[in-house]
Amino acid sequence: MSFVARSLKLLPFARPVMPSESEIISRIRLRARKTDSVVVGVGDDAAVVRTSGSKDLIACCDLMVEGVHFRREWASPKLIGRKALAATLSDVAAMGAVAKFAMVSAALPRGCSSEFIDNLFEGIFELADSCGVSIIGGDTSASSDLVFIDTSAIGECERGRAITRSGAQAGDVIYVTGELGASALGLMLLERGVTLAEPSASGEGAEPQMHREALRKHLAPAPRLQLGRVLGERALASAMIDISDGLSTDLSHVLDESGVGAIIHASAIPIARCVESLSAGSSEFDALELALHGGEEYELLFTAQPELKAALEELASDLQTRITAIGEAVSGGGMLLETEGNLTRLAARGFQHRI
Amino acid sequence: MSFVARSLKLLPFARPVMPSESEIISRIRLRARKTDSVVVGVGDDAAVVRTSGSKDLIACCDLMVEGVHFRREWASPKLIGRKALAATLSDVAAMGAVAKFAMVSAALPRGCSSEFIDNLFEGIFELADSCGVSIIGGDTSASSDLVFIDTSAIGECERGRAITRSGAQAGDVIYVTGELGASALGLMLLERGVTLAEPSASGEGAEPQMHREALRKHLAPAPRLQLGRVLGERALASAMIDISDGLSTDLSHVLDESGVGAIIHASAIPIARCVESLSAGSSEFDALELALHGGEEYELLFTAQPELKAALEELASDLQTRITAIGEAVSGGGMLLETEGNLTRLAARGFQHRI
Repeated sequence: MSFVARSLKLLPFARPVMPSESEIISRIRLRARKTDSVVVGVGDDAAVVRTSGSKDLIACCDLMVEGVHFRREWASPKLIGRKALAATLSDVAAMGAVAKFAMVSAALPRGCSSEFIDNLFEGIFELADSCGVSIIGGDTSASSDLVFIDTSAIGECERGRAITRSGAQAGDVIYVTGELGASALGLMLLERGVTLAEPSASGEGAEPQMHREALRKHLAPAPRLQLGRVLGERALASAMIDISDGLSTDLSHVLDESGVGAIIHASAIPIARCVESLSAGSSEFDALELALHGGEEYELLFTAQPELKAALEELASDLQTRITAIGEAVSGGGMLLETEGNLTRLAARGFQHRI
Repeated sequence: MSFVARSLKLLPFARPVMPSESEIISRIRLRARKTDSVVVGVGDDAAVVRTSGSKDLIACCDLMVEGVHFRREWASPKLIGRKALAATLSDVAAMGAVAKFAMVSAALPRGCSSEFIDNLFEGIFELADSCGVSIIGGDTSASSDLVFIDTSAIGECERGRAITRSGAQAGDVIYVTGELGASALGLMLLERGVTLAEPSASGEGAEPQMHREALRKHLAPAPRLQLGRVLGERALASAMIDISDGLSTDLSHVLDESGVGAIIHASAIPIARCVESLSAGSSEFDALELALHGGEEYELLFTAQPELKAALEELASDLQTRITAIGEAVSGGGMLLETEGNLTRLAARGFQHRI
């Protein structure tokens, strides 16, 4: 995850004395000098650098801290490890690149068992293996009482083909992959004590199934590596980001970097089945709100020229991945939400970690 | 720092329930599958991977945890940041490669001031700038009460030219750069309350000067980037490692990986002036012991064929870097220390963090 994409993570803890992460990032971005070999530096999902080869190199890292990004009582160590790597690989996907190598640094509390550590790394290796990513290094250290996992990834794409956040143009169609809202719902459920239990052999009702869908989306997200790579290879997207901070916030990053605005159609937003189902008749949360602002989806949000519609539909069909047009980029700034013909301002209220 | 190079860091905290870092690493190394593009995977100072270019890519990361690797009361945030990056760049140097890019992930306690954070990153940027390294990304997060800094670096070298730990052959001469023992002495001084104060305008005696030399070596180590790079470019070294865990332990890694043994000549070991000076008449520590086992030197330890002696001397002179022959690789395993003609077994008793 780039410095920018995680800009909301620190806010719940911010005190007057400490700058927010977005402030820290702004300063770092200003301070980081770009050389000729740095095509994209601090401030996108991943960096893009030019090396001696015919391809550009993609590099990014993502830090997960116990109590901020996960709780040990909510997920098996395998899922914790898996998600740590998933978040980083999702950033490579969001550049339209192929993830090739990864490194893992872990600070582990002194009382961690062998089993915990083995399973943490097993989760990382299983995801890496399934994605064709080689774990090539890392570091470990003692910690006081919390688990810290920093994963970094190296990928590559054809020279000049990386998809940044800054290429959206007025008139482009805005797409998202998959369905939205389930990860935030999963976190809500975890906070209420619902855990990821195995289904009973005798079958179960609809509610536990919906719970499990939400919990799995939150605890075991699958980065859209294949789709991201092909969008890059075929130059089908003009801008792309992964949805880690929530659709509204991540879209605002794309719009800010591209210098355009957007109209999003509420009725077009693909809401996860579990979110629709559990929100029906519930006064506790609104399905659209979760889909608009829920974080940690690790779906891709991208823009594409309208004439690429057929090509994208074919790709979605080939990869059996849902791709939904949810709006259009427009000239001027800001985000508008169209609901039954009415336009209202859409604020970037990306999901904040409340752990 | 590779998984292996830091193998002693966790030992002081190991409890029966938790495996040591070296055990964790052994398992990870076994688990990590090598593909054709991974020339060197887990288990060296850095990984070496083959990409589309004419050069090989070098990647490594190094995790520094407050209370394990540093204390905030011992060093300015600038020095803490600087050292975090220095450790990673030293690993690139130890592969005979050029460091090009770096990323920084930092978990920061909620009460951290703007000034602390700015200076932490300024220390990182200053070192990066002075080494021609571009900071291209990273991540930040809240933390509970400790600062965690994970730095990763990407470098490159001519294809097949990376210097691993495994190339030493019987008959090779063993060299170290610089002088040894000062970093461990610096840590001892810090533990006793001696801090890195500015020299007084009226001048000072010899002891504060020696203290400062030791403290600076510990708190502001300078990675041997130029020498490491040239050793790689000119194929002058058969094996190389940086001294992060102590000469004895890091040498044992080279010997284990290369399948050879070594004889080290006690009288040849270059002991730092401050170590010699402060150990004279002191019963508290032994200068040779510190030089043999003291960690965090970030000097290079390498082996080279005897006929390269003149070329190495010329290089040392050109780069104004001290290079000292301290022994020879021999067939068979184990390390022997020769002292006034007597041979004793040299154990790998690399320095352990005692913070």
